[in-house]
Amino acid sequence: MSYLVCKFGGTSVATASALTQIKKILDLDTRRKILVLSAPGLSSGIVTKVTDHLITIAEKTLKNKDVRRDVGAVKKRFITNYTELGLSEEVILEVLSELDVRITQNKEHPEKLRDSIVACGEEFNANLFSQYLNLCDTPAEFVCPQSIGLRVSSVYGDAQPTEEGMKNLEEIAAIADSGKVVVFPGFYGIAEDGSVATFSRGGSDLTGALIAEAIGAIEYENWTDVNGILSANPKVVSDPEQIPALTYKEMRELSYMGFNVFHEEAVKPVTEKKIPIRLRNTNNLSNPGTLIVSDRLPDERDVIGIAAASGFCLFNIQKYLMNREKGFGRRTLQIFEELGLSYEHSPSGVDDLSVVLDQNQLQPGTVNSIIRKIEDELSPDSIRTEFGLSLIVVVGEGLLHKIGVLAAAAQAFADAGININIVNQGSSEISIIFGIDSADEDKAVRVLYDSFFNDDTDDE
Amino acid sequence: MSYLVCKFGGTSVATASALTQIKKILDLDTRRKILVLSAPGLSSGIVTKVTDHLITIAEKTLKNKDVRRDVGAVKKRFITNYTELGLSEEVILEVLSELDVRITQNKEHPEKLRDSIVACGEEFNANLFSQYLNLCDTPAEFVCPQSIGLRVSSVYGDAQPTEEGMKNLEEIAAIADSGKVVVFPGFYGIAEDGSVATFSRGGSDLTGALIAEAIGAIEYENWTDVNGILSANPKVVSDPEQIPALTYKEMRELSYMGFNVFHEEAVKPVTEKKIPIRLRNTNNLSNPGTLIVSDRLPDERDVIGIAAASGFCLFNIQKYLMNREKGFGRRTLQIFEELGLSYEHSPSGVDDLSVVLDQNQLQPGTVNSIIRKIEDELSPDSIRTEFGLSLIVVVGEGLLHKIGVLAAAAQAFADAGININIVNQGSSEISIIFGIDSADEDKAVRVLYDSFFNDDTDDE
Repeated sequence: MSYLVCKFGGTSVATASALTQIKKILDLDTRRKILVLSAPGLSSGIVTKVTDHLITIAEKTLKNKDVRRDVGAVKKRFITNYTELGLSEEVILEVLSELDVRITQNKEHPEKLRDSIVACGEEFNANLFSQYLNLCDTPAEFVCPQSIGLRVSSVYGDAQPTEEGMKNLEEIAAIADSGKVVVFPGFYGIAEDGSVATFSRGGSDLTGALIAEAIGAIEYENWTDVNGILSANPKVVSDPEQIPALTYKEMRELSYMGFNVFHEEAVKPVTEKKIPIRLRNTNNLSNPGTLIVSDRLPDERDVIGIAAASGFCLFNIQKYLMNREKGFGRRTLQIFEELGLSYEHSPSGVDDLSVVLDQNQLQPGTVNSIIRKIEDELSPDSIRTEFGLSLIVVVGEGLLHKIGVLAAAAQAFADAGININIVNQGSSEISIIFGIDSADEDKAVRVLYDSFFNDDTDDE
Repeated sequence: MSYLVCKFGGTSVATASALTQIKKILDLDTRRKILVLSAPGLSSGIVTKVTDHLITIAEKTLKNKDVRRDVGAVKKRFITNYTELGLSEEVILEVLSELDVRITQNKEHPEKLRDSIVACGEEFNANLFSQYLNLCDTPAEFVCPQSIGLRVSSVYGDAQPTEEGMKNLEEIAAIADSGKVVVFPGFYGIAEDGSVATFSRGGSDLTGALIAEAIGAIEYENWTDVNGILSANPKVVSDPEQIPALTYKEMRELSYMGFNVFHEEAVKPVTEKKIPIRLRNTNNLSNPGTLIVSDRLPDERDVIGIAAASGFCLFNIQKYLMNREKGFGRRTLQIFEELGLSYEHSPSGVDDLSVVLDQNQLQPGTVNSIIRKIEDELSPDSIRTEFGLSLIVVVGEGLLHKIGVLAAAAQAFADAGININIVNQGSSEISIIFGIDSADEDKAVRVLYDSFFNDDTDDE
């Protein structure tokens, strides 16, 4: 059988009514047999995520502080939600009692204690939701990393699945084959010594992706509170188009610059098996969402999205006959690497080379260290710095073979009087990156959007 | 006193009539007191440069072959030219006898023997021309590296001046101050042991530049057989505009891609002292030539020239989440460096990096070595290669602050149906580089020329 793996984010599991909506979504498609749940998140009137409470509990526990109030707040969330759904308080408290066990465990390994507490939100939620489904006469089984053997590396807070863990996940298909809905907690796995180890924050997306990969799901549905991916930031462009379908690469290029609807690293497992990801809105079932696929059919749109990010700076190094010096570029990049800095782009002219990097990496004095090292090691004719740059990326699969996209983008900037400091079109066939002054960022996104999405009205 | 340093190239000293033209040029401006001469070059009916004869003589001498015929050819050139100008054959032969000495010297150091023979063309020419000037009642003095002490490094065939050598050159001003015209041979200096060491080929340009720098000349005149620098290759664009003035940097960017009117390295000494270089045509005194300066006034032209070069290839490396891997770019460039390859540009996208290099560097098997090393060391998702790329550079000082130049260039490509594989605008403020398929190179240069130079007629 082929299944949809459905992951529900924090707001989609925040309240009893949200949880009943999941039940409704399950009933609409019988292929939805594998659920991955986050911990209860925010909702109207709820200002703290369960996971944030749990982080506080872990921190206080390690400092031997009183956590009763915080533990009470966590328990109250689950009790409120699941009693409303018909579970008895007794059953719920039985599940929640595991938290009391975890806060009293040995503090010898703070990171293990922390992860085991922080993962409780997902674990309890999946367990209780499976009980709720059974109560509704939907046969369901709570399956968790402990029971299935989702083995991960012992990097607490940033664990990665092991080969054995991936192999074990395959068994989930057999459980679904028996007709039961599998309810699985996101965000964590089991380290070699049996302790809980969490993924990086937002890691429930990764859990869903791993299961989708392991069982060869026909689609990975990622349910949140947004309709899908928009073609531009709605805070900048009014009512931007929703993207119906885009490729993994396009999503990655967009998410690089602030489109953070989806946990990036979670894309990797599914890309390898070419499993489509569909972003859906739990509260708007009539919206088909955004489909993320390995290939898409060319459509009338050359450009599918425009993203922007600020906070970049640039070091421009000029040296006469630079290109005669073998290794000049490599040595330049090595200086940045030795100072612990990663760079984004390195456009070059004939006798000059620029290094563009995220300026948030810079500590006081870093700029001087960079300049001193460049002067000492490369003897340039001059070094120039620019701060407060924004990078604007125009994304579209096969973009570089669409003649005229660069011209249209550059013309839009020219018409708006925006100076382009950097252009980086790297033969990736998927994006063109412009570096401009941050003061022009919003204007740039708007004129590009108008050029590529509102061109019908502009013509004639 | 302030002087013009005047260097005359091979065709400008090829025949007796060419040499009288130099005398005429001297008489037109009394500030022309320092001449640097090349060896006699090509002219109508003369198919071998004196320097090429001398290279043959040096090679044959080292192999103990008969050189009498070649020596005869060299002597005949000087005898023909200078007897026509009134020097006695006896005087000429006396000067030329030095060649007989040099071909019989010790062969223990082949490179010293070679350089001392090859430099004879310039040495004899300067010596004889000074005698001709004196014959015309123009007081002149033959000054040479040996007499003034133009000390150079002992890198035969690619020598560089030493600090002492530069200091000694300053004395040339004093000789000119005495009212005499200094006639100096180009192309060589004197190594530490007193032997002749030549500059790299075309190095007479460097001699002139060094003297201009040493004496603080008001202008460095470089006389050849072309009017100046054209804004595009006349073999591609019909009757391209001559550039009236451009900056050192602009010249460098143009010369990078095949505008080789001027020996590149020769620019460096004069740039440091901001001495203007004027390219002039010996045979067209009414043409003011092209002036190369440190700064130029902004004029109506945003773009001053368009150059192109073919024979580039590209390696495109894709790896998901590449920008999270610190040092990825540096390690990529290091692979090319370790294989002894230099690269031109390295444009990048979000998850991809391209390395553009001169494909003439590649030996059979190099491409496979590159790909294997990249796969072994960087584990990319994919590597793609492209061969037969041309780079087109659009040059103009302050270009990047002229809004709309990129748009105009990109539009010209789009209108002509030319696909742009790479764009590299590196914040150098001076050029935009496009990578395209070589099949489109000529068309690209023509449409860019039309866009930036023929726009008056286009706009009607």
